[in-house]
Amino acid sequence: MAEGNYNNRHHHHNNNVNFTEPRGFSEKLKSSLSETFFPDDPFRGFSNDPPKKRLIKGIKYFVPVFEWLPKYNFSLFRYDLLAGITIASLAIPQGISYANLARVPPVIGLYSSFVPPFIYAVFGSSKNLAVGTVAACSLLMANTIGETVSPTDNPALYLSLVFTATFICGIIETALGVLRLGILVDFLSHSTITGFMGGTAVIIILQQLKGFLGLTHFTAKTDLISVLKTLFSHKNEWHWQSALVGIIFLAFLQFTRHVKNKRPKLFWISAMAPLVVVITGGLFAYLAHAEKFGIQIVGHLNRGINPPSINQLNFDPKYIAAPIKAGILTAVLALAEGIAIGRSFAIMKNEQTDGNKEMIAFGLMNIVGSFTSCYLTTGPFSKTAVNFNAGCKTQMSNVVMAIIMMLTLLFLAPLFSYTPMVALSAIIMSAMFGLIEYDKAFHLYKVDKFDFCICMVAFFGVSFISMDVGLGLSIGLGIVRALLYTARPATCKLGNIPNTSLFRDIEQYPTARGTAGILILQLGSPILYSNSTYVRERVLRWIRDEEFNTEYQGDTVEHLVLELGGVTTIDMTGIEALYELKRLLGAKDIKMLLVNPRITVLEKLTASKFIDVIGKESVFLSIDDAVESCRFRLAGPSKFDGPSKLNGLEQA
Amino acid sequence: MAEGNYNNRHHHHNNNVNFTEPRGFSEKLKSSLSETFFPDDPFRGFSNDPPKKRLIKGIKYFVPVFEWLPKYNFSLFRYDLLAGITIASLAIPQGISYANLARVPPVIGLYSSFVPPFIYAVFGSSKNLAVGTVAACSLLMANTIGETVSPTDNPALYLSLVFTATFICGIIETALGVLRLGILVDFLSHSTITGFMGGTAVIIILQQLKGFLGLTHFTAKTDLISVLKTLFSHKNEWHWQSALVGIIFLAFLQFTRHVKNKRPKLFWISAMAPLVVVITGGLFAYLAHAEKFGIQIVGHLNRGINPPSINQLNFDPKYIAAPIKAGILTAVLALAEGIAIGRSFAIMKNEQTDGNKEMIAFGLMNIVGSFTSCYLTTGPFSKTAVNFNAGCKTQMSNVVMAIIMMLTLLFLAPLFSYTPMVALSAIIMSAMFGLIEYDKAFHLYKVDKFDFCICMVAFFGVSFISMDVGLGLSIGLGIVRALLYTARPATCKLGNIPNTSLFRDIEQYPTARGTAGILILQLGSPILYSNSTYVRERVLRWIRDEEFNTEYQGDTVEHLVLELGGVTTIDMTGIEALYELKRLLGAKDIKMLLVNPRITVLEKLTASKFIDVIGKESVFLSIDDAVESCRFRLAGPSKFDGPSKLNGLEQA
Repeated sequence: MAEGNYNNRHHHHNNNVNFTEPRGFSEKLKSSLSETFFPDDPFRGFSNDPPKKRLIKGIKYFVPVFEWLPKYNFSLFRYDLLAGITIASLAIPQGISYANLARVPPVIGLYSSFVPPFIYAVFGSSKNLAVGTVAACSLLMANTIGETVSPTDNPALYLSLVFTATFICGIIETALGVLRLGILVDFLSHSTITGFMGGTAVIIILQQLKGFLGLTHFTAKTDLISVLKTLFSHKNEWHWQSALVGIIFLAFLQFTRHVKNKRPKLFWISAMAPLVVVITGGLFAYLAHAEKFGIQIVGHLNRGINPPSINQLNFDPKYIAAPIKAGILTAVLALAEGIAIGRSFAIMKNEQTDGNKEMIAFGLMNIVGSFTSCYLTTGPFSKTAVNFNAGCKTQMSNVVMAIIMMLTLLFLAPLFSYTPMVALSAIIMSAMFGLIEYDKAFHLYKVDKFDFCICMVAFFGVSFISMDVGLGLSIGLGIVRALLYTARPATCKLGNIPNTSLFRDIEQYPTARGTAGILILQLGSPILYSNSTYVRERVLRWIRDEEFNTEYQGDTVEHLVLELGGVTTIDMTGIEALYELKRLLGAKDIKMLLVNPRITVLEKLTASKFIDVIGKESVFLSIDDAVESCRFRLAGPSKFDGPSKLNGLEQA
Repeated sequence: MAEGNYNNRHHHHNNNVNFTEPRGFSEKLKSSLSETFFPDDPFRGFSNDPPKKRLIKGIKYFVPVFEWLPKYNFSLFRYDLLAGITIASLAIPQGISYANLARVPPVIGLYSSFVPPFIYAVFGSSKNLAVGTVAACSLLMANTIGETVSPTDNPALYLSLVFTATFICGIIETALGVLRLGILVDFLSHSTITGFMGGTAVIIILQQLKGFLGLTHFTAKTDLISVLKTLFSHKNEWHWQSALVGIIFLAFLQFTRHVKNKRPKLFWISAMAPLVVVITGGLFAYLAHAEKFGIQIVGHLNRGINPPSINQLNFDPKYIAAPIKAGILTAVLALAEGIAIGRSFAIMKNEQTDGNKEMIAFGLMNIVGSFTSCYLTTGPFSKTAVNFNAGCKTQMSNVVMAIIMMLTLLFLAPLFSYTPMVALSAIIMSAMFGLIEYDKAFHLYKVDKFDFCICMVAFFGVSFISMDVGLGLSIGLGIVRALLYTARPATCKLGNIPNTSLFRDIEQYPTARGTAGILILQLGSPILYSNSTYVRERVLRWIRDEEFNTEYQGDTVEHLVLELGGVTTIDMTGIEALYELKRLLGAKDIKMLLVNPRITVLEKLTASKFIDVIGKESVFLSIDDAVESCRFRLAGPSKFDGPSKLNGLEQA
């Protein structure tokens, strides 16, 4: 390569690296705040409108019903009507079953599918989500509040604390949405959710053995060992009649599920199956006087819609800790489930959902719910999938469901009092089998062992200790992992790929060739206090290794080129590490060159005077330029110290 | 560009991207464990030796004394003797002062400079570090244990708990070193330490007002408000004589400091000054019967070396919580100070220190110390700086200091009993003034506002609440920051810099030009569960923005090129986000191309079949190749849909 060419390149380089003044503080703050809290840029397209139009746009933005209702027509309604009927048929048995899991009166479960869907239809932004109660949150609620007040000894107080927890959950959800802290939900990884759901399914299935075997005594604990102990210590209470009926129901439900999996068009068979089980079960119990054979029934369901419960909210400091804990835990879980599900179905239809807006909708739904005898609701997976498959077009399907629930509550509720408990247990169990995703866990194992660990910690934590401990451990492990990644960012040595100007990792591309006397390292990830020591030591080790490897050829490292393209940011401790590195390299007479620092990094390096210390002429736009400059220095008259430095430069 | 050329490039590309089989699990695990726990590769050079030589090397590695002592000679000793005398002269007044701060008998402070330095000389790897007690840990110890047991009401129990805390601290330090968890200390950033030290200096200075004003009643609390309240509510106890003497001493100490700063060669004046103050103060108190004027003296110092204290270790469950808390907190602090200081002086001499080995040395020093009536020791900054300036060559200077301390304890101890408290207060205050680094805080403010916040939280937290709360808040904020960086990794749009094949951020390089129909994005940082949603949404927003900006020109995005060179790793949730992105883009008929995935990322993408889904032909080694391939597709016969797609391709 001719020297003229080099000079030409050098000239280019000087033109290219952009050393303009750092942006002002307020500009940087604004940009980083908006990236953190408004990554989806929700106000785009607002800015160029007159105030009145902006207001209307704003209302439409925050209250989606004004967006979709004006465009609504009968042809859409036909779809929503069908979907609404289908999900209502699922809502009745699920409502009663999950209320049973939450240890509140069964009618509360029906109430919970009446008011909240209306609220969601107004504020919710997902067109596919069906509102309802969910198993995991129901059990979590029962566990957390059951620790303070027994649902059997003091049902009125227990119920009031459940409403309070629902209210607190709603407040937290709304607050998270308003503060745009959807970011917190991001810390629940797929691995955690997979493990947690699997573990929860296991303990819920175990809980159902109570109803299945017709037991009257049962432990309040949920962990596998306690439940199995109780089960076998009460062997004499087992009722084979109840178990037989249960197995028949379960077989029927699993069969419909199997049909759905084979022929997705027949999804409505599996959607209707729980209602069929409840009705057949009820008829059977009524006609055969099932109670005589130890088959318990739900018993006593009042006619009438939701009574107000705002006066039942209980903020007595003596008990408040339990509803606060339950509210926080269920809020996180309900949001994670609801948002993830809304989002995944929206993706299938190629629509967008806004996580923060969804949070506000869920929050309002639970606040109003807690005033009207409902307990915690969110967007359950099973119901939403049915809604989606039934062809729902808008949030109207929730309204249809709510109206059907109202009619049920007004006229049909007492009929459901004959529902056998074992039918409910079979419905819950059947739903839970679908939540244990062996194949997903196996996939995790194959692709990422750490993710698999996170998943297993959640699974075994929930199964053997408790739901909150399992969840907490798994989230904690996830955070440790994220911190470890920031603490140990991968560095690699780059080499030139023959016949190109590309420089790539020599471990990945064994054909890539190093250049004598020049060590090129790529730093990845932000350089922060948590990894600055590591980065410095690791760079020094690369230099040591390089010198060790090349010492027999009489070459030492004379230039260190740091490729900073992957360094998204740097903090004060990181900059100090670079200063120290510079000083150490100076002692060894090694020159340090930087390549392609990104805008934020360059701003900080400029503000901290590091650029002045190494000199603007040591910052390059591409590795090629930097290497060219090094070669020139190595071969230059002032530093010319022998032909051994000229490897690959014979042409010069 | 001719089509033949394109094909040629395409051929190149197929040759270039390396799709070899993923490495085995054990290989990956080994490599990531060794990066996490052995980043400094301590066992390099061991592998090729016979077992016996390896054993000797191993012993030399773990017990550095065997490394340096055989090479030791008299010419080195002359330097170490001088340095040892100098640090001993500092150790006597500092030992008494900090023991006072820790609220243990003054002689304990002298004991602590006798045994631990011997241990450090054997196991320590830093040649500059001087062992001694430190102000921050002394106060933290007094606060934490003082909460449980009062040092005035029950001094024997208090002292036994201090020994226990020292023992626990030593165990923790050793364990962290053996487990190679030096990584934990990395989470104490410079900003946290600057703020914490400043805050600690403020509260220590306030504590000294007790001695300064000759007060007998004083609060056990350390926060600014409580101390000022106590001070003004006991106005009648103030002794102006004591304050006058104190001011004279302080002025003298600050003057010698000033001399040292002006003429670094005269450092020994400031190093000797505390001893001068103690001796003059003692003479003055003895001759003038200072006690009559309200000037308190240290009183009663027994002759004799360290009595054993192993029998005093107290693991009574009633009190154990306090020593455990004190042990953990002081271990973290002492390690952070000791390692950072050892390292920074080593850097000046261009030597290496091993953090994990240092931890083991500190740990052993404190374990043995707790058996021999010493309390917590580490490598204090002031003493180490003096040792360094006095020209120490090896760990022998610590041995010299220890021998002088032994002689002092055997023969001179009682003489120091006349030391006025106000002299000690002046010594501590003078040392503390140096720890409030206004200029560093201002530098932080200029360079990085978040770092400044972390610093201020530590400073005000320590000053107004307590040391542990301030430290905890600051570390917590640092972790939140690190997590935020992983949660919101910067993405940027790349454009081609005219007349080069380089692609750079168009915000940073406004001359960079986009290509019609092709959107090139650079993703930075690992793609983890905590940012996968963000990354997906952000990419979609880039596409929206791009289509909005270019829609008037009739161009839509047809290709999305993701530059992954900066993505150091990806987890399962991240891969699923890529799958979702691929699906969404598929619906919009946008083709997705990947450029330069790193080895770990490529392995996971292969294992999870993502590479199969997008096709190996969609993975490129350079942006240039990818863009070339897009252009060919845009212009190709099958997708040829109008001349508007041919921007910049007129030659084709």
